[in-house]
Amino acid sequence: MNSTVPHHLHESSSALEVRLAARSGQLTGHTSGLARQHVQANLAILPKALADDFLRYCQRNPKPCPLLAVGEPGQYRLTELGHDLDIRTDLPRYRVWQAGELVDEPTDLAAVWRDDMVVFALGCSFSFEHGLLAAGIRLRHVEQGRNVAMFRTNIPTRRAGPFQGPMVVTMRPLKAADAIKAVQITSRVPEVHGAPVHIGDPSQIGISDLSRPDYGDAVEVMPDELPVFWACGVTPQAAIAASKPAFCITHAPGCMLVTDRLNDQLGLG
Amino acid sequence: MNSTVPHHLHESSSALEVRLAARSGQLTGHTSGLARQHVQANLAILPKALADDFLRYCQRNPKPCPLLAVGEPGQYRLTELGHDLDIRTDLPRYRVWQAGELVDEPTDLAAVWRDDMVVFALGCSFSFEHGLLAAGIRLRHVEQGRNVAMFRTNIPTRRAGPFQGPMVVTMRPLKAADAIKAVQITSRVPEVHGAPVHIGDPSQIGISDLSRPDYGDAVEVMPDELPVFWACGVTPQAAIAASKPAFCITHAPGCMLVTDRLNDQLGLG
Repeated sequence: MNSTVPHHLHESSSALEVRLAARSGQLTGHTSGLARQHVQANLAILPKALADDFLRYCQRNPKPCPLLAVGEPGQYRLTELGHDLDIRTDLPRYRVWQAGELVDEPTDLAAVWRDDMVVFALGCSFSFEHGLLAAGIRLRHVEQGRNVAMFRTNIPTRRAGPFQGPMVVTMRPLKAADAIKAVQITSRVPEVHGAPVHIGDPSQIGISDLSRPDYGDAVEVMPDELPVFWACGVTPQAAIAASKPAFCITHAPGCMLVTDRLNDQLGLG
Repeated sequence: MNSTVPHHLHESSSALEVRLAARSGQLTGHTSGLARQHVQANLAILPKALADDFLRYCQRNPKPCPLLAVGEPGQYRLTELGHDLDIRTDLPRYRVWQAGELVDEPTDLAAVWRDDMVVFALGCSFSFEHGLLAAGIRLRHVEQGRNVAMFRTNIPTRRAGPFQGPMVVTMRPLKAADAIKAVQITSRVPEVHGAPVHIGDPSQIGISDLSRPDYGDAVEVMPDELPVFWACGVTPQAAIAASKPAFCITHAPGCMLVTDRLNDQLGLG
């Protein structure tokens, strides 16, 4: 994957600039660090026949599956997330799945879009990390330039149709005072996973070894820190993959939908 | 101390009923468990010469010293806390101090009130415990009928005049999910100590043995629980005692000012 970022894009770019770069094929890689003021979203696109079950799955599991927007069948515009937004072209790269197998990673959906496809945009922890960093809380994985550590837990999600499975969580090591602030800050933004689901002893939620994450990169927990766990957007991705739908589309890892919504306006209703 | 509760008082009594029972001398003991809907307050009464320093001490240390009301010199009514309230008679029992020594425990202040005395009413954790219990969080010390465990810490308070000293905290053992909820609930009520000041390892705040509290009763912490620590109203009491003022008055332990304010209206501005 060519993940070169066009020269004109940077952390202060507008969401529209990032989407236009993806739409024109200039941007085909990660959106991390671009348009930092803006909410980025996970994408899932499912056939109508599965979309109702998936919508109920999100409704029943709002912490791992915080829905920012849902389309009508065949609708590729989501104007509440961007005036001009075209979901078929505006992400840098997609993944196309058939019966649970990855079959293609196209940079647009021209060849695969169908009139029965339903678009789901889900909140992402980039947004609450923006709030934590703005409050002066240091995040080790950000400082070390790593992906956040993610773990499968023994916390079940509530089933809907074929969608089920364990909650996946992200873990960030924080000093106690910062952990308290982090609860306060993330409680205000249920659109992007909300408050933590666990603090402290990882074995209580079925995690045996913090140094061996199931996804992402390991990050050290210092003796004066608590591991703090948040519900993660990989949860619905894993539930979709496990259900092996005949056909579905997701974003490619790190290649998110950049929306017009501002991180600073989350939690304001 | 005769702490018999008059038959007509109970958890659903009005604040006025409790104050009238104290005023008439029928109630001379604990207010714990009475008029549960109402905010109870710690009391400190200082001569004008010290009151300005104490007011600044409270302003600088709002978590251990959450001020609900302050009087003018000589003012024994605090109408914002009760229409008819007379601070000289409306608590069941007081403590009178001279040069740091306890000299009397009267049931009214008729013999000791002076025109230069300034009344301070400070929020108390009874109020946030009401919110925790209402949210379904179990509190072991309440279930066991014990006083909450309190500890001196190595967290300094910000000095004002003669008032200084370490923060005193209460500790409640909670499962992680309840600890997260407790941060959310208590963050909304800064009038009654607000969010916790620490979660987890007690040695980080200078507490060497959780089974030996400095005040109150020990309570067990189970292996699947985190100790959660909140700033405590004993902090200003200890700061006053350490400053050994020539003359001052406080409530007797557990014999609080019962106010007309409702716990459920705290945090609503």
